[in-house]
Amino acid sequence: MAITVLGASTTNFGELWNQSLRDLIREASLLALKDANLSPKDVEAVFVGNMLSGILGSQEQLGPVVTEELGINVSATRVEAACASGGLAIYEAVNSLLSQRFTTVLVVGAEKMTDKPAEKITSSLMAAGSDAERQAGATFPSLYALLAKAHMEKYGTSEEEMAAVAVKNHYHASLNGQAQFRFSITIEQVLKSTKICDPLKLLDCSPITDGAAAVVLTSENSKQKTVNRHVYINACETATDTLGLAQRESLTELKATKLAAEKAYKKAGVTPKDIDVAELHDCFTIAEIMAVEDLGFFKKGEAGKKFLQGETKLGSKGLITNTSGGLKACGHPVGATGIKQIAEITKQLRGKAEKKQVENAKVGLCQNVGGSGATAVVTILTN
Amino acid sequence: MAITVLGASTTNFGELWNQSLRDLIREASLLALKDANLSPKDVEAVFVGNMLSGILGSQEQLGPVVTEELGINVSATRVEAACASGGLAIYEAVNSLLSQRFTTVLVVGAEKMTDKPAEKITSSLMAAGSDAERQAGATFPSLYALLAKAHMEKYGTSEEEMAAVAVKNHYHASLNGQAQFRFSITIEQVLKSTKICDPLKLLDCSPITDGAAAVVLTSENSKQKTVNRHVYINACETATDTLGLAQRESLTELKATKLAAEKAYKKAGVTPKDIDVAELHDCFTIAEIMAVEDLGFFKKGEAGKKFLQGETKLGSKGLITNTSGGLKACGHPVGATGIKQIAEITKQLRGKAEKKQVENAKVGLCQNVGGSGATAVVTILTN
Repeated sequence: MAITVLGASTTNFGELWNQSLRDLIREASLLALKDANLSPKDVEAVFVGNMLSGILGSQEQLGPVVTEELGINVSATRVEAACASGGLAIYEAVNSLLSQRFTTVLVVGAEKMTDKPAEKITSSLMAAGSDAERQAGATFPSLYALLAKAHMEKYGTSEEEMAAVAVKNHYHASLNGQAQFRFSITIEQVLKSTKICDPLKLLDCSPITDGAAAVVLTSENSKQKTVNRHVYINACETATDTLGLAQRESLTELKATKLAAEKAYKKAGVTPKDIDVAELHDCFTIAEIMAVEDLGFFKKGEAGKKFLQGETKLGSKGLITNTSGGLKACGHPVGATGIKQIAEITKQLRGKAEKKQVENAKVGLCQNVGGSGATAVVTILTN
Repeated sequence: MAITVLGASTTNFGELWNQSLRDLIREASLLALKDANLSPKDVEAVFVGNMLSGILGSQEQLGPVVTEELGINVSATRVEAACASGGLAIYEAVNSLLSQRFTTVLVVGAEKMTDKPAEKITSSLMAAGSDAERQAGATFPSLYALLAKAHMEKYGTSEEEMAAVAVKNHYHASLNGQAQFRFSITIEQVLKSTKICDPLKLLDCSPITDGAAAVVLTSENSKQKTVNRHVYINACETATDTLGLAQRESLTELKATKLAAEKAYKKAGVTPKDIDVAELHDCFTIAEIMAVEDLGFFKKGEAGKKFLQGETKLGSKGLITNTSGGLKACGHPVGATGIKQIAEITKQLRGKAEKKQVENAKVGLCQNVGGSGATAVVTILTN
């Protein structure tokens, strides 16, 4: 069964103090439907990706928020898997189409994070970690700092190499009119930025962001009345690992990413070499280094050098990663991120990514991670 | 495709101060697998129903909590729809089987509610309501009191009739060794209990509860190695309505229940008359009165009298409701409730409900509601 991304949208990402979570959900949903040339009554089921609306906004049960805004009474499911909530909502939406219960579904991811004090947001994000990590006072920068230290020790990965990831993603974001940080930075700026948790500095870390993204998926050819080139989801797979780092077999890779990728490549019948453009979960620079290795784009331990050499940056040969600016520079509204990734790859495969277009992009991949890797979703798209 | 409930379990419901959410999830999951005569490695995907773990327990991303406890790395999805989280997790699990991606999945629902002060729990439950209701200081007893007032005014439903629902469900709970309140009460006791929000009194309201429930579902005949009679899910359907009461067309019915029921009856090829036993969402006594009307068991406005006459109570002729004791007396750990309902009906259709067995039960129904009716899930099972 062919699953088509019929519509895709992203709101601006940033500190959107004049828009509520409901506003963002409505904006993204209606934009995606418009892009699909459909109306709300064409939507047969809704999936919502969100992590923090309960803790930060006192609002759970987001499914009916969407159907209420659209004026429909259909099935609506909120899916939560921390920062992989969006990707997992895509996954369940794809499954619902494969079940043949529905032919056209809307998936929306949204997060409203900037209305609370920073310490409240930081502690609420630890809801993605393990009890022991939370009780020990760990935060996500400190957990990813542990992963970075392990990678540096085992493979000699350097702080400059990590900084190169941030530099690339900021450059891409400078071409993205919807990104939170639309400016370039230098390796020196990253290295000199405030230390957050050694070896990670401020500019190694993704920000706190408000934003939403939505896609309309269909298995029905007759619905495809848009002028856009068709983009297909060939595989969407997920896997899990332990919540806490202490229980992991390795700290230099994310097992869940590897397992999900293995299934996705097999299902889509492609190899890492076939991927032209990828949106990766760079919540911290070390995360994108691990991602390109775990996904098989580079050999384990070699990715850092590649980034420093300018590979994966727009204009370079071969795979280009995080043309949106990634979580680092486009921003990271956690429940929206996995769906923004699909929206960005859809633009790329339609040839509509404008200044950040990857030439002749035919096969795209999205990798969305929950917490420090307890959930991973890998999706492969083609045109 | 036949979907079989291969294993089903419920932990004790009550104030379980010596068990964490993780303990409850593990207990219910392993009991359900044991009942299915399967081991963790047979589980191909996991679905978790939970509402409040983020707000009350600082833990989101519960999918990997389950897979970690089982020592597996499979797909794990947390589904949240307030008090319908459990029912909606069943719904998505059924869809995942229909998609033919999996043949055997585990669905677990759990909630840990009693560790916090009552006012914190009451306010956190309002995350199931609308912004306007929350900001106005409404609580769920007050919202259901509005529904009760509307029903009383339109149909002449009396406080005695509502009390009869609580009396019946407490009687049933007195036969259920896992219920929170294993004792009978009288109509007089209900009427004399502390007023919570007119016309609802303490004994019209379901309690705050810890507990978990789990089921193993399969589409694979060869997995069916248990000694239990097979129980099948013939239909599992859901619908949505507005979050807030103010936007509804009617306050004397739940539109989402009616829409979900219509689809479920059609899919299963049965009528309300065919149902022998039902688990209904009696978060307040008025809710069960509306439920039996909205589900077509009694004409609109006539249910109150039927309850007062002793109908739907064990030993009476025709449909029997809430043999578990319902939310009122078995208890209401919100994310577990929808799955406990499936577990109870499974016991009934296996003929293994012991003292609370409905004679010759062949067709069962579960109705699970989120908030004041923004989400409803209706499931029909047969043996």
